[in-house]
Amino acid sequence: MRLIRFGSPEAERPGILDEHNVRRDLSDRFSDWDRDFFNKGGLEKLREYLAINPRPNAVSENERWAAPIARPGKVICIGLNYSDHAKESNMTIPQEPIVFQKGSNTVVGPYDPIVIPRGSEKTDWEVELGVVIGKDARYLQSTDEAKQYVLGYCVVNDVSERAFQLERGGQWTKGKSCDNFSPTGPWLLTADEVADVHNLQLKLCVNGQIMQNGNTENLIFGVYHVIHYLSQFMTLEAGDLILTGTPAGVGLGMKPPLYLKAGDVVELCVDGLGEQKQVCEQA
Amino acid sequence: MRLIRFGSPEAERPGILDEHNVRRDLSDRFSDWDRDFFNKGGLEKLREYLAINPRPNAVSENERWAAPIARPGKVICIGLNYSDHAKESNMTIPQEPIVFQKGSNTVVGPYDPIVIPRGSEKTDWEVELGVVIGKDARYLQSTDEAKQYVLGYCVVNDVSERAFQLERGGQWTKGKSCDNFSPTGPWLLTADEVADVHNLQLKLCVNGQIMQNGNTENLIFGVYHVIHYLSQFMTLEAGDLILTGTPAGVGLGMKPPLYLKAGDVVELCVDGLGEQKQVCEQA
Repeated sequence: MRLIRFGSPEAERPGILDEHNVRRDLSDRFSDWDRDFFNKGGLEKLREYLAINPRPNAVSENERWAAPIARPGKVICIGLNYSDHAKESNMTIPQEPIVFQKGSNTVVGPYDPIVIPRGSEKTDWEVELGVVIGKDARYLQSTDEAKQYVLGYCVVNDVSERAFQLERGGQWTKGKSCDNFSPTGPWLLTADEVADVHNLQLKLCVNGQIMQNGNTENLIFGVYHVIHYLSQFMTLEAGDLILTGTPAGVGLGMKPPLYLKAGDVVELCVDGLGEQKQVCEQA
Repeated sequence: MRLIRFGSPEAERPGILDEHNVRRDLSDRFSDWDRDFFNKGGLEKLREYLAINPRPNAVSENERWAAPIARPGKVICIGLNYSDHAKESNMTIPQEPIVFQKGSNTVVGPYDPIVIPRGSEKTDWEVELGVVIGKDARYLQSTDEAKQYVLGYCVVNDVSERAFQLERGGQWTKGKSCDNFSPTGPWLLTADEVADVHNLQLKLCVNGQIMQNGNTENLIFGVYHVIHYLSQFMTLEAGDLILTGTPAGVGLGMKPPLYLKAGDVVELCVDGLGEQKQVCEQA
C-alpha cells in the first residue's frame, strides 16, 4: 500500500495512491496518517475499509503533494552511514551509529522548493532512504524484533548547509534544520511490499547530471540495526521518521565542492519509492 | 500570568495558577497551550476570559502537574552558554551559540521521575532557564525585535547522560533525548511579569546539597541574542522551547565526577519560576 497526503501546507489530508497511480482521498474517513493512527492499528483499519470501498474519490491533479505522513514527533538522522560518503567528507567510518536530529518542521512535500537560507553559500543535497516507525518502540531485544516496528519507507532529501553545519561551532543542527530541508515522499510504501530494504538503488541528479548513485546494500548500519540501536536510548514513537544516511556524491565531496543556487533542479529517487523534484529558490 | 497543565501523560489539560497558588481548570474553554493557541492570540483571549470569569474550577490536588505547555514542535538547546560550565567541562568558550536539539517527547512534568536509562552510569543534571516562543519567528532583524517573540519562561532540567553524549561517537543527541530527560515547569510565567530575565538566580540540589547556584546575568549569549540568532537558521514556531544553557556545578564537573542513581532526589528552581523535584528511578 502507498500512503500519500495532499493539500496546502498545514491543511494536508490523507489518501492513498492506487495501483493506477491515482491519488484517492481518505480524509472523510481518517483524520491523518499520524502517531495516533499508527499506534491504534490504523493501517489494518485502512486495509479493511479499502477492501469494502476500493475506489474513494480521486484527488484533483492540481492538489499539492504533501509529505506522506503527518509531521513526525522526531526526525532522527544517522550520519556517515555509507563508507564512501564518510570518505568523501574526510571523516572516519563510525564505530557505532552517529545520531543527530532535524526539526520536524523541516519536513515538506516532495515537489516543494528547496529554500536556500539567507547567507548560505553551501547548500547541499543528500538522497536517503527514510524509515517510518509503525508503533512505539523502547528497549527492543534484537534487530529481528526491530522489523516489526517498521511501518514503511519513503524517499527523503536530507538537505544540508555545510558552512552552517561544520563551520559555525559545535553541533550539526544549524546546517540541518533550516526550513524545507527535508522533502519527503512522494509516497510511503508499507514494509510488506518491500522485498529487500537492503538492496535498493538511490539516485540523485542536479540539473540532469547524476551526482549520487548508491545502494542500501552498502549501509554500514542496516535499517533494523539502527532501529534496535536507537531504541536503547529513547522511545521511538509511531510516525517518527528516521533518515538512514546518504551515499557518496554530495556537493561537499566534489573537487572543487559544488553547491546549490537558485534555479537549480534536484531530482532524486529510491527503487519503488518514487521520485522527487525540487527547484531551488533563495530565501 | 502563570500557565500550567495537569492530568495524566498524553491526556493533559490546560489551566492557570492563580494568585493564591490554586490551579484553575481552563479545559472547558481552551483546548491546549499549543502553537495554534499562541499564534492565534490565545493569550489575549485567555486574559479577557479571566477578566470576566476570574475563578474557574479548581484542579484537584491529586492531579499530576504536567509540563506547562503542550509538546513543543522543537526543543532547541544552547550548549556551554555559561563560561564557568564550559570551563568545568574542559571545553572552550564558544564564539557563537552551540545549538543542538532534544526530542520533544523528553518534555515531562516537573515532579515526574528522572528515568535513568538502562546501561547508564553517567546520568547528570542541568538546571536551565527555559524560554517559550510566542509566535512564529524567522529572520528577525535585531535582538530588540526578538523580545516580542517571547511568550514566557519556565524551569527546565536538561538531564544528560554523559557517556551516551560524549563517549559514543559523533553528536550529543544520544545523551540528551532519553525518555523523561526534560522535566519542565511547574509553570510558565508570561514575559510581562519578568522584570529582568538576565538577573535570575538558578539553583539545583541533589539529596539536599546545593550543586548549582548561578545567575542568568552570566549567560554568554543572552535570551534575545539567542532567539535572533536561531531565527537566522530556522523558523522558531510558537510553543517551541529553548533551553538556554546551564551554569557550573553539574556532576561531570565534580572531582571526581558524581552521577545520579536510583533514589536520588533532585530539586531545582529559578527565581519566580517555581521549584521542581524529581526522584531518580532505574529504567
